[in-house]
Amino acid sequence: MTWLETSTENCTVQRTLDLIGEKWSLLVLRDAMNGVRRFDDFRRHMGLSEAVLAARLRTLVAAGILDTVPYREPGRRTRHEYRLTRKGWELWPVMIALKQWGDRYTADPEGPPLDVRHRDCGEPLEAVVVCAGGHGPLTPREAAARPGRAARAVS
Amino acid sequence: MTWLETSTENCTVQRTLDLIGEKWSLLVLRDAMNGVRRFDDFRRHMGLSEAVLAARLRTLVAAGILDTVPYREPGRRTRHEYRLTRKGWELWPVMIALKQWGDRYTADPEGPPLDVRHRDCGEPLEAVVVCAGGHGPLTPREAAARPGRAARAVS
Repeated sequence: MTWLETSTENCTVQRTLDLIGEKWSLLVLRDAMNGVRRFDDFRRHMGLSEAVLAARLRTLVAAGILDTVPYREPGRRTRHEYRLTRKGWELWPVMIALKQWGDRYTADPEGPPLDVRHRDCGEPLEAVVVCAGGHGPLTPREAAARPGRAARAVS
Repeated sequence: MTWLETSTENCTVQRTLDLIGEKWSLLVLRDAMNGVRRFDDFRRHMGLSEAVLAARLRTLVAAGILDTVPYREPGRRTRHEYRLTRKGWELWPVMIALKQWGDRYTADPEGPPLDVRHRDCGEPLEAVVVCAGGHGPLTPREAAARPGRAARAVS
């Protein structure tokens, strides 16, 4: 079975994009990874309408990517903060890979607005692909794709 | 300047998502990375309308992520194939990172439909974050983010 003969019905990239593959969802995650937690902060920082933001947060919470935690400011009603779960943090390599590509190809001449480095040694981060055997970083040519056990033919 | 005080106007993740942050664009890239090149093959495999596919391909070509190469089958008019440029292939870590997360959290019990491994040793691939100093894989806690030289205050 070639890739073209393989059904995309149970493709895990497609299912992932069904959850987070919308620009504003990924930008909510970007802000969450940078410490943003409150509805109004997301809204103001991203310049997003309440309705769109609420919808994206609902999807991310339903997917277990964000969790809600109650907080209460003096004299105000209880509200919720949004915090990344472990499942949410596991999208960090996706975010760093997007940033790496963007820093290379879309930054203004003076550079990107955010500089992310290894806390210990101060060197910049890189998103790379390695193998479980300890080899890498790998290039696409060094990778071999074949149908997995769950591959189904296009019907 | 904290992240919340930083303008998202020149954010390189946001600019990247302006180019590829739509589900079908990323799925076109998924298919392209698996060797799909022709309009009708993309369309049939992804179950996508001609109009949406044509729009996504146009954006990706305009961004220099895909290139068009003419081909001609006997007795038919010249058409174009779509091939990833170097710039397009540099999105490979994004795709592997999305697949890794999807394989972990969205696969059917029998697994994902596509199995990607290191050609030389046969071990499965991993998308990881390392630093230019040779340390890693890193976790988000080991990363430190600060405003870059191009950071602008929210106006």
